[in-house]
Amino acid sequence: MVEQILDVIRGVAGVKLLDYSSDPSHNRTVVTFVGGPEQVKTAAFLAAQKAAELIDMERHRGEHPRIGATDVIPLIPISGVTMEDCVRLARELGREIGEKLQIPVYLYEEAALRPERKSLPKVRQGEYEGLKEAIGRPERRPDFGPARLHPTAGATAVGARPPLIAYNINLGTDDVAVAKAIAKAIRGSSGGYPSIKALGIMLKDRNVAQVTINVCNYREVPLHRVLETVKSEAARYGVNVIGSEIVGLVPMEALLDAAAFYLRLEGFRQDQVLEKRIHEGG
Amino acid sequence: MVEQILDVIRGVAGVKLLDYSSDPSHNRTVVTFVGGPEQVKTAAFLAAQKAAELIDMERHRGEHPRIGATDVIPLIPISGVTMEDCVRLARELGREIGEKLQIPVYLYEEAALRPERKSLPKVRQGEYEGLKEAIGRPERRPDFGPARLHPTAGATAVGARPPLIAYNINLGTDDVAVAKAIAKAIRGSSGGYPSIKALGIMLKDRNVAQVTINVCNYREVPLHRVLETVKSEAARYGVNVIGSEIVGLVPMEALLDAAAFYLRLEGFRQDQVLEKRIHEGG
Repeated sequence: MVEQILDVIRGVAGVKLLDYSSDPSHNRTVVTFVGGPEQVKTAAFLAAQKAAELIDMERHRGEHPRIGATDVIPLIPISGVTMEDCVRLARELGREIGEKLQIPVYLYEEAALRPERKSLPKVRQGEYEGLKEAIGRPERRPDFGPARLHPTAGATAVGARPPLIAYNINLGTDDVAVAKAIAKAIRGSSGGYPSIKALGIMLKDRNVAQVTINVCNYREVPLHRVLETVKSEAARYGVNVIGSEIVGLVPMEALLDAAAFYLRLEGFRQDQVLEKRIHEGG
Repeated sequence: MVEQILDVIRGVAGVKLLDYSSDPSHNRTVVTFVGGPEQVKTAAFLAAQKAAELIDMERHRGEHPRIGATDVIPLIPISGVTMEDCVRLARELGREIGEKLQIPVYLYEEAALRPERKSLPKVRQGEYEGLKEAIGRPERRPDFGPARLHPTAGATAVGARPPLIAYNINLGTDDVAVAKAIAKAIRGSSGGYPSIKALGIMLKDRNVAQVTINVCNYREVPLHRVLETVKSEAARYGVNVIGSEIVGLVPMEALLDAAAFYLRLEGFRQDQVLEKRIHEGG
């Protein structure tokens, strides 16, 4: 079933499938693809159409919160497009999914039309099952499409956001309380950096406490600032940072920024990177 | 004249001209191009042929040491080729330039056939004018081509080497002696890192002493080790590093290595970089 949806995306000229991964306990597949704005919009629309054919939300179970067969479509500016372009694209795509597929669509994050819909968890409140009734209330009315769930495909959130970096920092302690305290200090939900999400967890196989972090806007809060803040908070407990890891993909710019910060580079320009020069232009 | 040579390079399918810069006091142009091994070899051969037509060494003057119209051709592995490939390519290219253009060729650095020719300054000893007579001596006999200079084009050095990074570190002092002492500590010629060249100079417009460095093999001695060694030597004089700069192009890997070092990344793979994934494969 996932393969059929991937094939639809692969079939759009100018779109490149970069990555996909299915989590069995989540019962959820994350697909990443790149391309020109119109091509990406087309691929996303066709994938949502195919998912609506293949997935019946009445029979779907999984640990991860979801509101529909295509739960969420984030459009992310990578190169040669701005966030504003992605916002416009998200709204066009949302309208098409709403009108042509008759699936209710909620615009979220940068593309949100209502401030309370910036937050994806709020858009997902009640999930598919709860949204069946809630969608009738004015405050849950979708931005596009009918004010009732699609009978099999549910609803879809469409948004625009910067690339997210999954960045984990390992501490030289087996005391998870230290990791929890540091997570609390840096995350937006408890007064830290607004674009940072963080939890303190225990890596049982290594007996190491970890601060597991989503860097949701690396231009606002770059990796080096996250690490340096964690180092400084950890020092208060006499704890060292013993390592860190990036899970999955990371934009080159986020690592170049870290290199430039720590090397104290003056006047560095990204087009000094040989590979950028090679892939640029003709 | 330079334009005619650039046009020859631009005319080779599969070769991309990345950069060129002419220095009037050096009376010298540095041209950078990339492509598949055979295409790069063809472009280098045709450029050397065109330079031999256009440049008369009998009338050439300039501050930078040189032995011929095409003074030196370094082949540099960037992506999908090994140093061994570049060594083989340099020897093939050297043979063609020697035999077809009747220009004597010296193989240097990684491509050298005689250990004393690893050093480009040694190959250039005496320059064009001095080499006229010296080329008759057994120890200066070229690796390919006639044992006499080409009447207008002189001789050419062909070699293979890693990409060189021009990296300058600025010190929080106006005492050039500190920069000179640090340069001496890190450079290979005085017992430091063999692949590092360094000088202490004064930036007169900023009244700042600078250690100006060529990082000749960033896999052997990465940027972070250069900076940390300079920091530690500078601390001895109570001097801080106030900044650094990369002049010209730098391989992405060198900056990713610096980011991974300072962020203390565990298990980082370059194919996690989004842009690498985008440009890879089909």
